[in-house]
Amino acid sequence: MKYAFIVEYDGTPFCGWQRQSGVLSVQEVLENALKIALRHEVVLFGSGRTDTGVHAWGQVAHFESLYAVDAFKLRDSLNALVRPHPIAVHQVFAVPDTFHARFSARERFYTYLIQNTRFPPALERNRVWHIAVPLDAEKMNQAAQLLIGKHDFSTFRATECQAKSPVKTLNHIAVRRDGDKITVSVSARSFLHHQVRNMVGSLALVGRGKWTVQAFKEAFDACDRTKGGPTAPARGLYFERVVY
Amino acid sequence: MKYAFIVEYDGTPFCGWQRQSGVLSVQEVLENALKIALRHEVVLFGSGRTDTGVHAWGQVAHFESLYAVDAFKLRDSLNALVRPHPIAVHQVFAVPDTFHARFSARERFYTYLIQNTRFPPALERNRVWHIAVPLDAEKMNQAAQLLIGKHDFSTFRATECQAKSPVKTLNHIAVRRDGDKITVSVSARSFLHHQVRNMVGSLALVGRGKWTVQAFKEAFDACDRTKGGPTAPARGLYFERVVY
Repeated sequence: MKYAFIVEYDGTPFCGWQRQSGVLSVQEVLENALKIALRHEVVLFGSGRTDTGVHAWGQVAHFESLYAVDAFKLRDSLNALVRPHPIAVHQVFAVPDTFHARFSARERFYTYLIQNTRFPPALERNRVWHIAVPLDAEKMNQAAQLLIGKHDFSTFRATECQAKSPVKTLNHIAVRRDGDKITVSVSARSFLHHQVRNMVGSLALVGRGKWTVQAFKEAFDACDRTKGGPTAPARGLYFERVVY
Repeated sequence: MKYAFIVEYDGTPFCGWQRQSGVLSVQEVLENALKIALRHEVVLFGSGRTDTGVHAWGQVAHFESLYAVDAFKLRDSLNALVRPHPIAVHQVFAVPDTFHARFSARERFYTYLIQNTRFPPALERNRVWHIAVPLDAEKMNQAAQLLIGKHDFSTFRATECQAKSPVKTLNHIAVRRDGDKITVSVSARSFLHHQVRNMVGSLALVGRGKWTVQAFKEAFDACDRTKGGPTAPARGLYFERVVY
């Protein structure tokens, strides 16, 4: 029996989604909870890894159970078992045998939040990237549109990225200002390692006026990570949802 | 020289706004920062106390400085000095000698957030009151309208409240649902101790269907705290702003 669930987490206390020895991952907390709930070992497959400090509103993961479970009750049990960790299972579904959280994903949505105020965040600490100098969100959005479509994203690819090809197709990107908050929303079937954070880091250079839109385009066209801007911090990034 | 500032804080790690011996208050952290910045003892007057765990987006406080300061620089210094506490000074203003953060206030605005989902909050932990059973926000709003105007609010007054009279004038209250989130916004010149949390606790009984709007009215009219519902938790309450 195959099941999938949608899970929210605060990335702050975790080494990221993926299990690693010696540090606490979201995967480990959930696998341990599933082991208690189902009374057998369970391996979880997430739709995508998230880095240390990256948050999720709608990560998706699947697992196999040796027997049929009540999805509603399992959700409640998991939420009781993961305490006190900041993880919340929104829903559990029975899925077909052919379903794979990672490989069946058609589109992944991420949001990146920037707090653009002279003063630092208090309530939103660990939830936003704080940039104290005023950003031009319209210019950022203009530069962002250059990224849409199928391109070589080497400029925004982490050196440790293990993807076979640097070519990806970005379906959507928008940079919007709402008062002091700037939101960057993106979607694609899949992303390179650190791709969203690296794109946001370079867009911030445009927003600050350190780069023109033309300079951004040249960096992107260079297909060279050393020409890109810095990596935006993990704490502003949210894995929003997955479409299958 | 008199100055005032607007300050945001995450109430979670504090015993509340007011200085108390042996525990950490927002007032103490800010007074200590001001003492370093101004190089003399400073007493802060807040526009209102907040309880342990209650947050603020726009608390206002005033103090006297022995000399004129650059408001812009002082704001930056304070934000550096309060670290690592989750406090952010948004703005510092010079104010007339007649200004008093507490006594000059004409209207105070609070917001109360409820997350109405079967699953618990993860990213919003310590930021919302989680109610797992479905709430009828329209019914809550209907009951809330009974509170507008000048009334005896004894039903929603903490037993330890030190106000001379239980009579207050509520200017505005609205209960709105936005997806899974329910927001209660209120304003008045001043509130009794725990008044907002007690009103929300009783409105939640209406939302759950445990009380009819008529039962809510009867409890309110009884002017008796023992007839009121429970006190809603501090973590959902935000001191939004003050109008002078």
